[in-house]
Amino acid sequence: MTERSQDEEKTSRGPQAGKAPQAPQAPQAPQATQAEKAGKAEKAEKAAQAVKGTKAAKAGKAAGRAVKEAKASAPAGGAGAAKTGPGRGEQTGRPAQARAAHGVSRRRLLGTAGAAGAAGLVAGGAAGAFAGETVRKDPAPLNGVGSASRPFHGAHQSGIADPAQTCGHMAAFDLAPGADRKAAAALLRRWSATAADLMAGRTPQGDGSGVALDAGPCSLTVTFGFGRTFFDRTGLAAKRPAALEPLPAFTADALDPKRSEGDLWVQIGADDALVAFHALRLLQQQAGSAARLRWQMNGFNRTPGATAQPMTARNLMGQVDGTNNPKPSDPRFAGHVYVPEDRGGADAWMAGGSYAVVRRIRMLLDSWDNLSLERQEKVIGRRKSDGAPLSGGTETTPVDLDKFREDGSLAIAGDAHIRVASPASNRGATMLRRAFSYHDGFLDDGAPDAGLLFVAWQADPLKGFVPVQRKLDRGDGLSRFLRHESSGLYAVPGGCAPGEYVGQRLLEG
Amino acid sequence: MTERSQDEEKTSRGPQAGKAPQAPQAPQAPQATQAEKAGKAEKAEKAAQAVKGTKAAKAGKAAGRAVKEAKASAPAGGAGAAKTGPGRGEQTGRPAQARAAHGVSRRRLLGTAGAAGAAGLVAGGAAGAFAGETVRKDPAPLNGVGSASRPFHGAHQSGIADPAQTCGHMAAFDLAPGADRKAAAALLRRWSATAADLMAGRTPQGDGSGVALDAGPCSLTVTFGFGRTFFDRTGLAAKRPAALEPLPAFTADALDPKRSEGDLWVQIGADDALVAFHALRLLQQQAGSAARLRWQMNGFNRTPGATAQPMTARNLMGQVDGTNNPKPSDPRFAGHVYVPEDRGGADAWMAGGSYAVVRRIRMLLDSWDNLSLERQEKVIGRRKSDGAPLSGGTETTPVDLDKFREDGSLAIAGDAHIRVASPASNRGATMLRRAFSYHDGFLDDGAPDAGLLFVAWQADPLKGFVPVQRKLDRGDGLSRFLRHESSGLYAVPGGCAPGEYVGQRLLEG
Repeated sequence: MTERSQDEEKTSRGPQAGKAPQAPQAPQAPQATQAEKAGKAEKAEKAAQAVKGTKAAKAGKAAGRAVKEAKASAPAGGAGAAKTGPGRGEQTGRPAQARAAHGVSRRRLLGTAGAAGAAGLVAGGAAGAFAGETVRKDPAPLNGVGSASRPFHGAHQSGIADPAQTCGHMAAFDLAPGADRKAAAALLRRWSATAADLMAGRTPQGDGSGVALDAGPCSLTVTFGFGRTFFDRTGLAAKRPAALEPLPAFTADALDPKRSEGDLWVQIGADDALVAFHALRLLQQQAGSAARLRWQMNGFNRTPGATAQPMTARNLMGQVDGTNNPKPSDPRFAGHVYVPEDRGGADAWMAGGSYAVVRRIRMLLDSWDNLSLERQEKVIGRRKSDGAPLSGGTETTPVDLDKFREDGSLAIAGDAHIRVASPASNRGATMLRRAFSYHDGFLDDGAPDAGLLFVAWQADPLKGFVPVQRKLDRGDGLSRFLRHESSGLYAVPGGCAPGEYVGQRLLEG
Repeated sequence: MTERSQDEEKTSRGPQAGKAPQAPQAPQAPQATQAEKAGKAEKAEKAAQAVKGTKAAKAGKAAGRAVKEAKASAPAGGAGAAKTGPGRGEQTGRPAQARAAHGVSRRRLLGTAGAAGAAGLVAGGAAGAFAGETVRKDPAPLNGVGSASRPFHGAHQSGIADPAQTCGHMAAFDLAPGADRKAAAALLRRWSATAADLMAGRTPQGDGSGVALDAGPCSLTVTFGFGRTFFDRTGLAAKRPAALEPLPAFTADALDPKRSEGDLWVQIGADDALVAFHALRLLQQQAGSAARLRWQMNGFNRTPGATAQPMTARNLMGQVDGTNNPKPSDPRFAGHVYVPEDRGGADAWMAGGSYAVVRRIRMLLDSWDNLSLERQEKVIGRRKSDGAPLSGGTETTPVDLDKFREDGSLAIAGDAHIRVASPASNRGATMLRRAFSYHDGFLDDGAPDAGLLFVAWQADPLKGFVPVQRKLDRGDGLSRFLRHESSGLYAVPGGCAPGEYVGQRLLEG
């Protein structure tokens, strides 16, 4: 029955697809007038273009152009964006008018200039309706959570140096048997155009799913990477970076190959679950016949506003996690995280890119929670309450690995996680960790299937993740509470300019 | 190795358990002084009490007393709270001092009175740190997301008439073979005390997990219910309500018994994923030897602030879902949702309670997304963009089932979901739907394992869910895009007063 309906309906999709989802929402508000006009003009323009299938590339270029104009004065992404771009809760630099003119905003455009000032009102206006009550007052402007956006175009892809969002999806795809370099290029072009639209809060052409309607961009990021096998399948083995050599085996590894590696990797993050799901679903659909989903995982972090302190996140062990991450303000940050721009040779296409090590690390929480607080803190080397190192001070006080307590013992134990993982113990090896927690229910024995979707970013995994993990594998007191259940290593190219797509330098270089 | 460590450490837990998690966070802020003092006084008092095992009941009572005092002037829960209680984004009625005096707040207490006015600042202050940057400024007050709380005590349990939160967990537990009525009563007493603490943002005694540290209550609700089998296992079959008769079988059912029913049902909702996980984990641990997890599911809704319109939620089909829900402002609301207070007979203990029908409804999104927008709207009977009925108007315009279009066809098709489900088509049958979306990855064929964690609340399932679902089963155009994969029916008792626990009238009546 379902199959029949699929066939039945497919033919009627074309003429409708680009049309109705872009209809302005609830036309009663006078502020919407300008936006509606812009929306209609855009709709007419888009209706004149082809929507589906092989025309996607063209649509992608059009979207690219629109973004170029809209973003003319916007800062570039990556490290630059980390300093100058909008953080959570701040207004984006682009005026609402620019967005109205160049894309179909998912929501009625509302004056956002006064949003910060009127945020007291916003807090109430953004309140959810009671389950039984539809509250439809005069629409209030989005608060920072909804309106915040990250740049798609720039020197680096977003989703690396910017804050990890509330909701995350990781997905790997394998190219279909027949798919070649050309098919892969078309896929990356489609995906890039869609990611650019979604990250700006626009509804991509032909998307009638409606799942993210009414929502702002919600800090959505979509980040693309290439696995080791991608290069064989596309005849690009000569351009495969040496850094993609398989990771060594570690003793805490219990890897599931079905949930590891993959030709293509996509990382999605957003501060709203529907916005994140919408992006994932759309990218999966656009993979079409070119690629198939290999694995997919869901993760989460704290909701903006849940804590008054914009502090380092906690993981599901309750521990403040990420304190010693390299800081974008550090002049060495780019060197640690990004492949240099002046890179020559076979992998010159990776300039501005980064390497992502992605690991599903299950926490043995039943064992961990049975430790006393004192033992937990000793294993980590930090106080649980505030993340301060056991050598003293506050969370951000530099760790003193040589400090002794009055009883003559080391303040930071010999097998404490922060000692074994510290750059000082690893000849300066540094990576940027940007993780999500995950919880996929419980195993048959009642133990939580929960832990960390660990993502480490570095210019060279052989100088970042590998030496640190090797050391942790031997001497870390924490490792007996962890199981690495899946692993992936991906070359994440630099960001692209408007009109280009991610990976273009590789696929057309 | 893990097993060994468990045994090794268990003994050292006792003396630490009640102590360190309640240590005040980062003592540098002057505002914390008062709270710290209160915290220390509380700690000293609690240290004098026993923390573990059989003493939990006593601790529960103590917590109940504290809450009673703190809540002296707070409104009761349920329908009353739906009108007068705090919605998302609003400040709670209780002054910060009351909370400081009677419980150990999870976060440093900060002036919240000015929070709404200073919300512009809050939006920035609540921003997440960049992945690589620890931003630890002067702490800003929580914005509405973190500080909002729902009452645990009252005429009705929370989690029914109040807005569905961003993150949801559903879990069912079965009593252990040896567990009797007394063990069940002790469990409900433990759970109630813990829920009361967590919903007020306090760290329960003995909880060192730290996962929710720094966060406010985040609108946490914990709601408890009893399944049909609970009454046999506890020798209370004579008190089992007739309303718990098994639901009839429906043709769209493809039920997995392992993920259906259960002796005890727990619904958790919070606007922060770590707060929700923390509650789930703690309740699971407290089940101890009395009950074992039977099944557990995760769900989500829109993040507060993601949309400017506090509108009815969208589901993963992209459709506005829940418009026709009964409104708490309607004088008939309580009659539809809650068991009358003057209930006599065997199930008098259910006065003020409600019956929850819980169904995991998978959406066949691949089929659905292949429909044209026009067909999707025809199947539902509403416009996708704004939820307006196809008979005209806006989302809240009453549906005109008798309206014809110019071509002579019904504006709302004969098999449209809103026609078949409408009270007018079901002799007034009414239920309150309060759902979460879910997404557990993808099936082997690439189809999303996603849909709705449907929860329907009613005073009598035989006058709410059953007649509507029977009708939908026969004539709803939507049902071919849905699979009901699990089902549960639970008697959810009324709320309890301070010092009592949920279900006490049943278990001690």
